[in-house]
Amino acid sequence: MLDKFVISNKGITAPKGFKANGIACGIKESGKKDLAIIFSEKPASAAAVFTTSKVQAAPVLVSKEYIEDGIIQAIIINSGNANACTGAKGLKNSILMTETTADELKINPRSVLIASTGIIGVQLPMDKIKQGVKDIVKTLSEQDQNSSKNAAEAIMTTDTFSKELSVELNLDGVLVSIGGMAKGSGMIAPNMATMLCFITTDVNIEKTVLENSLKKAVDLSFNMITVDGEISTNDMTAILANGLAGNKEITANSKEELLFQEALNFLCVELAKTIVKDGEGATKFIEISVENAKSFTDAKNIALSVANSNLVKTAFFGEDANWGRIMAAIGKAEADINSDLVDIYFEDQQIVKDGTGFLFDEEKINQILKSKEIKVKIDLKNGRDKAKVWTSDLSYDYVKINADYRT
Amino acid sequence: MLDKFVISNKGITAPKGFKANGIACGIKESGKKDLAIIFSEKPASAAAVFTTSKVQAAPVLVSKEYIEDGIIQAIIINSGNANACTGAKGLKNSILMTETTADELKINPRSVLIASTGIIGVQLPMDKIKQGVKDIVKTLSEQDQNSSKNAAEAIMTTDTFSKELSVELNLDGVLVSIGGMAKGSGMIAPNMATMLCFITTDVNIEKTVLENSLKKAVDLSFNMITVDGEISTNDMTAILANGLAGNKEITANSKEELLFQEALNFLCVELAKTIVKDGEGATKFIEISVENAKSFTDAKNIALSVANSNLVKTAFFGEDANWGRIMAAIGKAEADINSDLVDIYFEDQQIVKDGTGFLFDEEKINQILKSKEIKVKIDLKNGRDKAKVWTSDLSYDYVKINADYRT
Repeated sequence: MLDKFVISNKGITAPKGFKANGIACGIKESGKKDLAIIFSEKPASAAAVFTTSKVQAAPVLVSKEYIEDGIIQAIIINSGNANACTGAKGLKNSILMTETTADELKINPRSVLIASTGIIGVQLPMDKIKQGVKDIVKTLSEQDQNSSKNAAEAIMTTDTFSKELSVELNLDGVLVSIGGMAKGSGMIAPNMATMLCFITTDVNIEKTVLENSLKKAVDLSFNMITVDGEISTNDMTAILANGLAGNKEITANSKEELLFQEALNFLCVELAKTIVKDGEGATKFIEISVENAKSFTDAKNIALSVANSNLVKTAFFGEDANWGRIMAAIGKAEADINSDLVDIYFEDQQIVKDGTGFLFDEEKINQILKSKEIKVKIDLKNGRDKAKVWTSDLSYDYVKINADYRT
Repeated sequence: MLDKFVISNKGITAPKGFKANGIACGIKESGKKDLAIIFSEKPASAAAVFTTSKVQAAPVLVSKEYIEDGIIQAIIINSGNANACTGAKGLKNSILMTETTADELKINPRSVLIASTGIIGVQLPMDKIKQGVKDIVKTLSEQDQNSSKNAAEAIMTTDTFSKELSVELNLDGVLVSIGGMAKGSGMIAPNMATMLCFITTDVNIEKTVLENSLKKAVDLSFNMITVDGEISTNDMTAILANGLAGNKEITANSKEELLFQEALNFLCVELAKTIVKDGEGATKFIEISVENAKSFTDAKNIALSVANSNLVKTAFFGEDANWGRIMAAIGKAEADINSDLVDIYFEDQQIVKDGTGFLFDEEKINQILKSKEIKVKIDLKNGRDKAKVWTSDLSYDYVKINADYRT
């Protein structure tokens, strides 16, 4: 797959015509960066996917409305405060943030997306943010690895490292870039909430194709990771495509659509994996792949049930070859299975055959369980569909981080 | 409610005509009790509810078949081995256990229910069990608090105390008893799996009324508790009603049906609560009640979503008034809500009003959070239905117990 596109570590300003930066405007008491802007010099086709939670933060409500016409030119993001559960005042503040950003950038306010992440239930410090927006707009720069990194850092909360990636691909002789940055540490740590991802690209692409591509990529990446099974009030993934690469517009069912989809999938999966690797208290990175299911939904439900099981997660933390917990987690998933057909492997070692324990090489299994990254394969032998989910273990530190968070 | 029936702590032999006992037959290496029998001198009307898991242990498959005609005279239960994921041999062994029990008791083999709890994936030591059945049958006794307690102890796995209760009620001048015993410590600790509950009663009751009564009671009790959101391969609740109290047969929609239902609900709810109180690593017992929902299902989904949220549970362990996590858990539940209407109370102290933080007396809230038992009320102001769920917090010890289980 990698011969079709090349990884470049330039982040969100890798594509042509995108400026960005991240600064500290004083929302975080620590003085760390907390405000980021992404700006496209040309209005861009845009698509986004939002949290499915019924408790939605003000910035989610605003962004959902503004993205309806599909044209976006800037994204403003703050960390340190989620502006969630903040009522009418919170909604007004989100709108004000987009207006201030539009004023400074001299663009239409409804072409500004907004996202917030951080503490729930506290109003935003609007004076600091207004000043911050004025300051940051002066510093935006393009094709700049430092600016990209600043922006990626400014959206962090409990993250222990920033997450960014870019790839380049050749579309019929034209070089096209996709850049992305993400944050998240725990699917959600509700006072410091949220999984966020922002993707820029200079590709020229039909709006509906862009929307479908993003949906497909998110379904294979951010929808397939879980640290603690939680859903945030602020989750959001957005993509802006400004067309400045100059390729022939990508249309549905073209060879170029497939190439772009592959590159976008790769970018999203890699960013998603880094979120799990930075999971709260995580000591292990675990890939659960479910094969030969009756449907993708069955495969996904089983993989998520196993990945979200506290008992499976604590067993991995304890480096315990406890396949009974995996069988129990498979059993509770909503899926059409025959438990007498299930095979389970840790890496290349089979541990369950036809639903019962399989004599395994204990030394080899113990060695696999000691490693930082573990692949678990569940073969249902019941169909042809498959799904892959990434998760972390459940450690003392997860409890520590989340029990001590505010105290 | 308590004036309608009286608590008596006699356990499962409280009702007339029920014998029981529990012994150690050698399944558990520790030498602790591991085999129990409940025997009704008269074939009893029976009803049972089984795990919804798609991975079902052999004893579940056998009991499901045998209970179809609704007449049961004995229940044999072993702990220390779940006989789950044990294939055709496991199934044969479960049938053999019922046959041996029937032989010794001189009853029809298909009138014997069977349940197992303990390690998954290991075959039962049938020689020990066969000898155990012979031994225990000689020791069964009725109206005997010690025998009841022995049986309750013989079904324990990681439980730290045995769980039994009985109630007496007056049905139109006739004294009727209901006795119950349960086990469970964690909804499931899959190598030492399972929530089990066995209820005896001497009431005379129509079979379909008995079935409905059990279903209703389980829906309000065992289906409303959660320690870690797991479902076992072996879960089972069964009730035997032998009619020896001599009351006029309870029929549908009678005053007596209501009285019996209330007493059965009480017994099941109390036993369910003790399971949560014995939850793995639990330091707090938390009641989540959701009020004014559009439907019971909505209320239940929200209560379970909050109760199962690792972030809510770690916050309670940390004694942290983190209402944002509760709002997030409400938001991810499948339910029809308006997040701008949600009120949340800890005991009598309001902490959220109309979906946003409500100025609260921090000292009072901190005091509430320090107690061992905490009531959380979520008022959706969106309908008239309600549900109540009981759960525990998530502590270091939960991780310790489950990470170190086999090692």
